[in-house]
Amino acid sequence: MTDKEYMALAISLAQKTIGQTSPNPAVGAVVVKDGRIVGLGTHLKAGEPHAEVHALHMAGENAKGSTIYVTLEPCSHFGKTPPCANLIIEKQVKRCVIASVDSNPIVTNNGIARLKEAGIDVEVGLLKEEAEALNPYFNFYQIYKRPFVTLKTATSLDGKIATYSGDSKWITGKEAREDVHKYRHEHDAILVGVGTVLADDPSLTCRVPNGGINPIRIILDTSLRTPKTAKVVTDNEAPTWIIVGSGVLDEKKQEFEKLGVKVIIIKEPTISISELLKTLGENGIQSLFVEGGAKVNGSFLEAKAFQQVITYIAPKLIGGSNAPTSFAGTGFENIKGVPLLKVKSVEKIGDDIKIVSLPKERV
Amino acid sequence: MTDKEYMALAISLAQKTIGQTSPNPAVGAVVVKDGRIVGLGTHLKAGEPHAEVHALHMAGENAKGSTIYVTLEPCSHFGKTPPCANLIIEKQVKRCVIASVDSNPIVTNNGIARLKEAGIDVEVGLLKEEAEALNPYFNFYQIYKRPFVTLKTATSLDGKIATYSGDSKWITGKEAREDVHKYRHEHDAILVGVGTVLADDPSLTCRVPNGGINPIRIILDTSLRTPKTAKVVTDNEAPTWIIVGSGVLDEKKQEFEKLGVKVIIIKEPTISISELLKTLGENGIQSLFVEGGAKVNGSFLEAKAFQQVITYIAPKLIGGSNAPTSFAGTGFENIKGVPLLKVKSVEKIGDDIKIVSLPKERV
Amino acid sequence: MTDKEYMALAISLAQKTIGQTSPNPAVGAVVVKDGRIVGLGTHLKAGEPHAEVHALHMAGENAKGSTIYVTLEPCSHFGKTPPCANLIIEKQVKRCVIASVDSNPIVTNNGIARLKEAGIDVEVGLLKEEAEALNPYFNFYQIYKRPFVTLKTATSLDGKIATYSGDSKWITGKEAREDVHKYRHEHDAILVGVGTVLADDPSLTCRVPNGGINPIRIILDTSLRTPKTAKVVTDNEAPTWIIVGSGVLDEKKQEFEKLGVKVIIIKEPTISISELLKTLGENGIQSLFVEGGAKVNGSFLEAKAFQQVITYIAPKLIGGSNAPTSFAGTGFENIKGVPLLKVKSVEKIGDDIKIVSLPKERV
Amino acid sequence: MTDKEYMALAISLAQKTIGQTSPNPAVGAVVVKDGRIVGLGTHLKAGEPHAEVHALHMAGENAKGSTIYVTLEPCSHFGKTPPCANLIIEKQVKRCVIASVDSNPIVTNNGIARLKEAGIDVEVGLLKEEAEALNPYFNFYQIYKRPFVTLKTATSLDGKIATYSGDSKWITGKEAREDVHKYRHEHDAILVGVGTVLADDPSLTCRVPNGGINPIRIILDTSLRTPKTAKVVTDNEAPTWIIVGSGVLDEKKQEFEKLGVKVIIIKEPTISISELLKTLGENGIQSLFVEGGAKVNGSFLEAKAFQQVITYIAPKLIGGSNAPTSFAGTGFENIKGVPLLKVKSVEKIGDDIKIVSLPKERV
Ligand SMILES: [Zn+2]
Ligand SMILES: [Zn+2]
Ligand SMILES: [Zn+2]
Ligand SMILES: [Zn+2]
Repeated sequence: MTDKEYMALAISLAQKTIGQTSPNPAVGAVVVKDGRIVGLGTHLKAGEPHAEVHALHMAGENAKGSTIYVTLEPCSHFGKTPPCANLIIEKQVKRCVIASVDSNPIVTNNGIARLKEAGIDVEVGLLKEEAEALNPYFNFYQIYKRPFVTLKTATSLDGKIATYSGDSKWITGKEAREDVHKYRHEHDAILVGVGTVLADDPSLTCRVPNGGINPIRIILDTSLRTPKTAKVVTDNEAPTWIIVGSGVLDEKKQEFEKLGVKVIIIKEPTISISELLKTLGENGIQSLFVEGGAKVNGSFLEAKAFQQVITYIAPKLIGGSNAPTSFAGTGFENIKGVPLLKVKSVEKIGDDIKIVSLPKERV
Repeated sequence: MTDKEYMALAISLAQKTIGQTSPNPAVGAVVVKDGRIVGLGTHLKAGEPHAEVHALHMAGENAKGSTIYVTLEPCSHFGKTPPCANLIIEKQVKRCVIASVDSNPIVTNNGIARLKEAGIDVEVGLLKEEAEALNPYFNFYQIYKRPFVTLKTATSLDGKIATYSGDSKWITGKEAREDVHKYRHEHDAILVGVGTVLADDPSLTCRVPNGGINPIRIILDTSLRTPKTAKVVTDNEAPTWIIVGSGVLDEKKQEFEKLGVKVIIIKEPTISISELLKTLGENGIQSLFVEGGAKVNGSFLEAKAFQQVITYIAPKLIGGSNAPTSFAGTGFENIKGVPLLKVKSVEKIGDDIKIVSLPKERV
Repeated sequence: MTDKEYMALAISLAQKTIGQTSPNPAVGAVVVKDGRIVGLGTHLKAGEPHAEVHALHMAGENAKGSTIYVTLEPCSHFGKTPPCANLIIEKQVKRCVIASVDSNPIVTNNGIARLKEAGIDVEVGLLKEEAEALNPYFNFYQIYKRPFVTLKTATSLDGKIATYSGDSKWITGKEAREDVHKYRHEHDAILVGVGTVLADDPSLTCRVPNGGINPIRIILDTSLRTPKTAKVVTDNEAPTWIIVGSGVLDEKKQEFEKLGVKVIIIKEPTISISELLKTLGENGIQSLFVEGGAKVNGSFLEAKAFQQVITYIAPKLIGGSNAPTSFAGTGFENIKGVPLLKVKSVEKIGDDIKIVSLPKERV
Repeated sequence: MTDKEYMALAISLAQKTIGQTSPNPAVGAVVVKDGRIVGLGTHLKAGEPHAEVHALHMAGENAKGSTIYVTLEPCSHFGKTPPCANLIIEKQVKRCVIASVDSNPIVTNNGIARLKEAGIDVEVGLLKEEAEALNPYFNFYQIYKRPFVTLKTATSLDGKIATYSGDSKWITGKEAREDVHKYRHEHDAILVGVGTVLADDPSLTCRVPNGGINPIRIILDTSLRTPKTAKVVTDNEAPTWIIVGSGVLDEKKQEFEKLGVKVIIIKEPTISISELLKTLGENGIQSLFVEGGAKVNGSFLEAKAFQQVITYIAPKLIGGSNAPTSFAGTGFENIKGVPLLKVKSVEKIGDDIKIVSLPKERV
């Protein structure tokens, strides 16, 4: 097999773990000796061994004189685990093929440098683009220190999220609603406004076959109006964070914290999206899935604070001037000023349509 | 070549004339003798020869003993042209392969019967579905005596047709806007509300490369508020019909008719969509392309009076609670009551998305 | 519709007549006025009207001021029909869009020049490649004055055309055997050696659904050993030509000619392929379908005299050192000297495989 | 993710090790807990841990209460490694999803039974067909106790393997010749006749990028004519077995064995293919890649002893009655008696064509 085929295998291994490694990136590794795969591994969970460790462990004695294919530059610092670069050197690997370098500018190329110093034959860049596409959220966070934001909406063909009377169950079909849960699995956190909590009392967990990983549930709630009886407060299914404005009293905060909820006070009377994202970034949230409602969506839109937009459209016509749409607030005044997107994919999902768009100009 | 290949050729000939034969259907014909195509033809324009006439004329002496492939049952009545069934008999064609029967229930099978009586070997039904798909508008009109209605909308990804301030130029791109003109070419008539005339003074003509056929321009204008200086009144590019309510005085009607505009009075103070369509049907309109605005769209939606919906979506987010959407009016109260569609096709068109949907249950 | 769409229609019209126009090329024409197709035509048979004549006839009065799309430069000389260039001028066509120029170097551009002199707006080259691909046989003959040669073989997976005992019925399946008849329809003439006539007494006609056009049957028969009772002599299904060497007596030739067979004497005791093709070219054969047997195939191969190779392969293994293959004779001595082909297409046909190859270097 | 997605991952893991696990089958395993992949593994080499062992080891503590997806029923017997069924029980896995059962009839379902007894929830049959397709050679051998035979030939378009003068270098191109080495990697053994050794002195090793696994080299050599200086005797690149007839003296056998070559005497003066395959089966050869020459190929063909045929065809015409083809010997007398194949795939490979066929009726 060619180098490319082995690296493609390493990438496909990493792909299966997307969503379960945060705050670490998904990484895959393959060890080959004498035309034979002698080890393979992926990073499975933060705090557990890196992909290289699993793969070299499986290789055992065969690691000596082998080639290792890794989707990401091996680490060179002591974290929760010792540096993989050291292990590769110690195991006397002969050649190291790397797809992409570390996206953290502070450590980029450190691992590569150490391997080279040790006399290992290092090649960088094979299937680089595919490897980088494994971890868009991680890569974004490394650079900007705030979460990658995905906006999700689901409307009728005429852009409505409910009838004029407020009926909204169900606009999209089963397949589209299930698809949403894959995004919940992938993202570190999910965000809704307190209005959604008051109206629907949602659980905001990830329900997929064979279970999924629940995101941290974040409630945007300037005046701390979330009821103590809300599911997100009481069900213990996943961590819940309530983001409140500077007007909230410390004792009220403590009441919620006694219930196991984290309350973060933003030092603004009205919470701005930029301050919110900065704070979430400081709290380690790398990816945020925004599920509205319309008011929250509108705030993110007007702040142009999103990196991905997922739109589900059901082939129904609801009509009505007063039927609500997915983005409330003021909106933009001129077409020339609105954020432009480019369509990444369009597909049918059940009876509905799913559109994935990205900002035309990044960030 | 097989019968199927010859009939497919006849169908492909007809396909190219869709939009130019109304009120007649698009029809194609191929004449074959001794494994050799000896004639082919399509119907080009109402009042001109039928497909069979062109094809048999091209065949000349070779028609005798030949097989003719026709997408539609040959006519048996004297219209603007003598019956094609007679011509086929007279030319001593030996075999007639027909894709679909006449959709007018009064004459269905008459042509076939006459050919059979004359001893011609007749086969019916080859590529029937494909042949029927050539003329959806014509077929609908034959049965329901009112026009087939296509609703067209163009919105941002969040369903808006303008910003809150009314700016709407341009939401969709060049390719999507050009695509609209193909529908204008195909439909007998285009309909807008007087509000659109007052706001935009559009010409409503068909602008495609190498020219196109302008639809009849129909203005829905209960109180006859169309200005006499409007382009649709003055430009002489295509016929203009104004549909007015019972409150409009006869003398005002005559003023417009002097300007070359047809004014049709509906005997209702407020025009209902059902009465409108009935009247247009009586006036021979087989297909109607509704281009709004939002109020007119809303009326057609609430009357559930449409057979096709064309939706262009631009990857832009306009936002704003007060930014208008494509269907105004009251809308439906409950999700269970809204018209269900099924998506026929989704495609990218330039940077935008085009969705074609049909009512889930026909009519 | 765009110019390209109209030209594509003209090309698709011509495509359907491939095989029935020889010695003329397949040509299509479409006449358009004011966004409406007003005429279309193809050339159907040598001696009958050209494509432009049919299309302009169908257009009638509408020809004036129209655009005509033609796949081939209109003719400018008086042949069996008056020049089309004159007709286009006379009908006051405004614009003429031409895909490809005449491949006969003597008349190339004459038609275009005449149209331009008459003030017609002429554009040349739209879909040129597609238009030229309509008539590979015709184009080859125009340049080389000898027939375009297609070699056809049908073997087992191990290259055998019969078992060691001579059993050859059937190696390939029904679909492959039917496909062969399409090539008979397309070519002016089919060629076999007298050995095949003696062994199989074939009819060499074209048997396709709805009939096909029989090629001229050419027997390569140096010593005139064809029996007078052979089907190709007696059945009157198609012309038969016997090509004989210089040793054949004139009176024997006359005996066959009395039976309706054309006998052509090549002035060589042993017929060379180059002389054969020169003679066939002089007799107007533009395309020749060589169906063997192995000895004849071998002669064409060793003369490198072919422009297309059709290979049917059945998934059977016949085996045997003495089982015959499709090319007999000496063959080439060194791999470096053999004719190289490039595979144009490979497809499954029924249970078999069909490979179309072309010489790597043309001619 | 669904069960199907996890099993597909297990299958894709196994796919990458095809060719390196013999005499064991390729097997993959994935361990999942709480919607998170906690372990994955494949069997890498006979004698080393099974797929389940790697995957459960990677899972560590997470194995308890997990679901394991395995492409093949876990083993229940003590071999070179302890039974995987025991390990699964011991690790307190909760659920075991199995694609295919053991193809060895003696142990089929034993592993499943043991797991069920231990109270593990077992499901069998998910993606069964895909999992079985991983190991066609292994599965065949389990049932028939003789090797799965792949016949490989490479010819010109007219079925020749050399010119009449014997020149054969090169008929097929680089890509086709490289592709052959993938089959050498996959098969336990490669077989040629002594004639090929005498003529070409080939090394018969597997040369692919990053190395490959050399098959055992088997020389069919009734009278033991292999030179002691042949590469296969002297190069030590891979084991060499010479299969000789009953006429070979024991002392000659011992001379070769001193050189490190295994000599197997078949108790027949002329070796029959059936006895050969029986003997190879007894010696543990599960898959045999037959690379000829023509005489050996002919013997396998006439014995109808093959399960797969790989045919490379170069678009060249060599011609010549005496140019050799890929199957020598007598061959079959009647078309009705020849082995029928079905084409599994046809593809272009470089400038050549590759056809994979299978016997129409298995075995
Ligand atoms: Zn590491
Ligand atoms: Zn008619
Ligand atoms: Zn002409
Ligand atoms: Zn095991």
